[in-house]
Amino acid sequence: MGNNPAMQNAHFVLVGGGLAGALLAAGLGRDGHRVDLYERRSDPGAGNFVGGRSINLALSARGIHALEQLGLAQEVLADAIPMHGRMIHGRDGSLHRQPYDRDPSRHINSVGRAVLNRVTIAAARKLPNVAVHFNHRCMDVDPARPAARFVREETGETVEIAGDAVIGVDGAYSAVRRALQRQERFDYSQQFLAHGYKELTIPPGSGGEFLMERNALHIWPRRSFMMIALPNPDGSFTCTLFFPFDGPLSFSSLRTQSDVSTLFEREFPDAVPLMPTLLDDFFANPTGSMVTVRCAPWHFGGRVALVGDAAHAIVPFFGQGANCAFEDCEELRRCLHEQDSRERAFEEYQRRRRPHAEAIADLAIANFVEMRDKTAAPAFRARKKLERLLHGWLPGMFVPLYTMISFTRIPYAEARARAQRQDRALLTGTAVLLLIFLVVVWRLWAAGG
Amino acid sequence: MGNNPAMQNAHFVLVGGGLAGALLAAGLGRDGHRVDLYERRSDPGAGNFVGGRSINLALSARGIHALEQLGLAQEVLADAIPMHGRMIHGRDGSLHRQPYDRDPSRHINSVGRAVLNRVTIAAARKLPNVAVHFNHRCMDVDPARPAARFVREETGETVEIAGDAVIGVDGAYSAVRRALQRQERFDYSQQFLAHGYKELTIPPGSGGEFLMERNALHIWPRRSFMMIALPNPDGSFTCTLFFPFDGPLSFSSLRTQSDVSTLFEREFPDAVPLMPTLLDDFFANPTGSMVTVRCAPWHFGGRVALVGDAAHAIVPFFGQGANCAFEDCEELRRCLHEQDSRERAFEEYQRRRRPHAEAIADLAIANFVEMRDKTAAPAFRARKKLERLLHGWLPGMFVPLYTMISFTRIPYAEARARAQRQDRALLTGTAVLLLIFLVVVWRLWAAGG
Repeated sequence: MGNNPAMQNAHFVLVGGGLAGALLAAGLGRDGHRVDLYERRSDPGAGNFVGGRSINLALSARGIHALEQLGLAQEVLADAIPMHGRMIHGRDGSLHRQPYDRDPSRHINSVGRAVLNRVTIAAARKLPNVAVHFNHRCMDVDPARPAARFVREETGETVEIAGDAVIGVDGAYSAVRRALQRQERFDYSQQFLAHGYKELTIPPGSGGEFLMERNALHIWPRRSFMMIALPNPDGSFTCTLFFPFDGPLSFSSLRTQSDVSTLFEREFPDAVPLMPTLLDDFFANPTGSMVTVRCAPWHFGGRVALVGDAAHAIVPFFGQGANCAFEDCEELRRCLHEQDSRERAFEEYQRRRRPHAEAIADLAIANFVEMRDKTAAPAFRARKKLERLLHGWLPGMFVPLYTMISFTRIPYAEARARAQRQDRALLTGTAVLLLIFLVVVWRLWAAGG
Repeated sequence: MGNNPAMQNAHFVLVGGGLAGALLAAGLGRDGHRVDLYERRSDPGAGNFVGGRSINLALSARGIHALEQLGLAQEVLADAIPMHGRMIHGRDGSLHRQPYDRDPSRHINSVGRAVLNRVTIAAARKLPNVAVHFNHRCMDVDPARPAARFVREETGETVEIAGDAVIGVDGAYSAVRRALQRQERFDYSQQFLAHGYKELTIPPGSGGEFLMERNALHIWPRRSFMMIALPNPDGSFTCTLFFPFDGPLSFSSLRTQSDVSTLFEREFPDAVPLMPTLLDDFFANPTGSMVTVRCAPWHFGGRVALVGDAAHAIVPFFGQGANCAFEDCEELRRCLHEQDSRERAFEEYQRRRRPHAEAIADLAIANFVEMRDKTAAPAFRARKKLERLLHGWLPGMFVPLYTMISFTRIPYAEARARAQRQDRALLTGTAVLLLIFLVVVWRLWAAGG
């Protein structure tokens, strides 16, 4: 907090009680601030919590570290399912396992979004200086005061709350960000993927058992599209089909049940028998879109700040959305500690986090191509094997990108830069080896002739 | 119009009567369509037309071609001042002339925005099937119908107009685009320059004469900022200072009259004596911001389309904003002619124009660096001279980028690609010449030794 007493016991109005909002409320509360957290949905403890996002997610080193700082990691991981690698499903039903790391114990964790949210909300609520208000939809924010205006979903009445700072933790379609967008010279970009996604399900077996390998992230890579499946504690898998919105083979071309059956029988034949409700799910569930949002600045003086998807929505293919947002929360608290004004704290938070948010946004888009296309290719598999070998031979020097992102807390932009350097070295090394090989062959041939 | 009679005599509602809106109204009217053009400002013929943008602009080949197609070029050029090159002003008051092309007769044209707008509005109004409505501010557009809602500025009453299609020609902060942004999966980006601009003036001499070289675009390049001046028919020059918004040397650091005087005396000493109202103008005139807007799609079915800055606002440093928007108008009319549905016409218009809009957006940003920094450097001047020589020696093969953009109608993206190829060839050529030179020197030396 520097030396400024006004920085202690500030009053924070948090908009959005999703994963990052709840974690931030718990963190700021623990730092001694007064926190009012407002959430559009109803109390997840009351059992009728409906997430706007996918059902489960991959929790890895960064997210776990943030949970550990608040003593919540153990509780969350008790309900998690370790995934040690990718399980690639061929069109012919063949299976191919790709470990995530050379150390077989390293894994990412399939966690239910609802479980994670319940644990963080409960942690926030335990603190006497934190109040959580459900069923409040944010309508607008006045950055100058600062204050946020909400509608109570049950009664329709409007409530306005002022505080020392309003923090937007309200996701890709942030209402708080919309208020900042009205400010002068606000840089903003939203870019949608041409693919949408549809959630489907593989239920547990009749004895509650998993019908596919439990400890893996399953992928059916089909070049221009893919399906993935993550395990849930009840023995089921949540499948997600990533598929073009438009074109000859697309959501818009799948009109009838027979269109869908034909596609699945041809592309995912081993999954079809495990998906008894496929056709119902396909037509009942919405088709989601995926957007990358970039903006600047992330704050308005010391009065408003954006955290997580509200500042930098990313696509889900590196499993880093929540992990990255949790890192934001940690950095924001660190900056509030170190700086002697809230404005400087918000500035410093943006300066430190924005390059890493930009990096993971790009990496997440690139990983979509890797998952849906390259994972199926023998050359890619050979390369992954080589990376694991190099990682073993040169443990401090060569660390695969996936390992850096998922199993370390090396900042995203540094991980990307290091991976680029490693790629160049690998290319040079390969060229040199090829040259040596050619020289040897030539000398042997010359000696023989 | 293909073979579809519904494509003839359509009813177009145009939002925005600036340069592109008026030209498009005249063009669509001439094609036989019914056109209602709505403009927020009052009638320029009534003499109280206030532009939201800079006072004059550089009209070049593309814009002139579009005006010629409607028989308006002569009238506009009668009031234009040819600029044959850049006049670079050093800090010591030294002058350096850089011709725009090796052909000294080639020039761009300083044209008053108001004159150009009056001519195009008058051309549109002459047609019985075109109606122009001033003092109408667009509030919203319903893309589905399609219809546009306006407020009449004088009375405050609301008017709603439906048509076959609504065309947004309403600039960088387009209300029509805002309606498209509410559609699903609309890609959008707005990025502001860190520099703002301020318009200032050099009045004519006491006898109405120009106080600097008349037929040039004047530049005071100062690396991180610059001033430019364009001639007006009345003997005055409109100066524009491009200067950082924030930082140690910025608009926000220039607080007092003495701050401004000190800056101008140091940086633009030859201009100061010509600017008697400098201090008043500086504090009375607003500081403008410059934004690059990119979006997609540019249309909603066959019902709404965006043209000019509304689809792709660019920064002013290549003098191509109006020229590019005029090309949009021509292409849109061509597509309406060729395709047999309006939806296909709008699609095709976007397919053809978007790559070129992207290219000129990038080139315009790059030209800012060229103007404010490189024009002052001897190496840059030598390079420009070399380009002109090559253009003379290899007329069909080597065409400088500036020439392609300003004096030809080669599509922007092609011009950029060709300039990149030329740059590579130039680099290779220089390397080869250097090598030959070294070999010759070495042989001479060897022969001597």
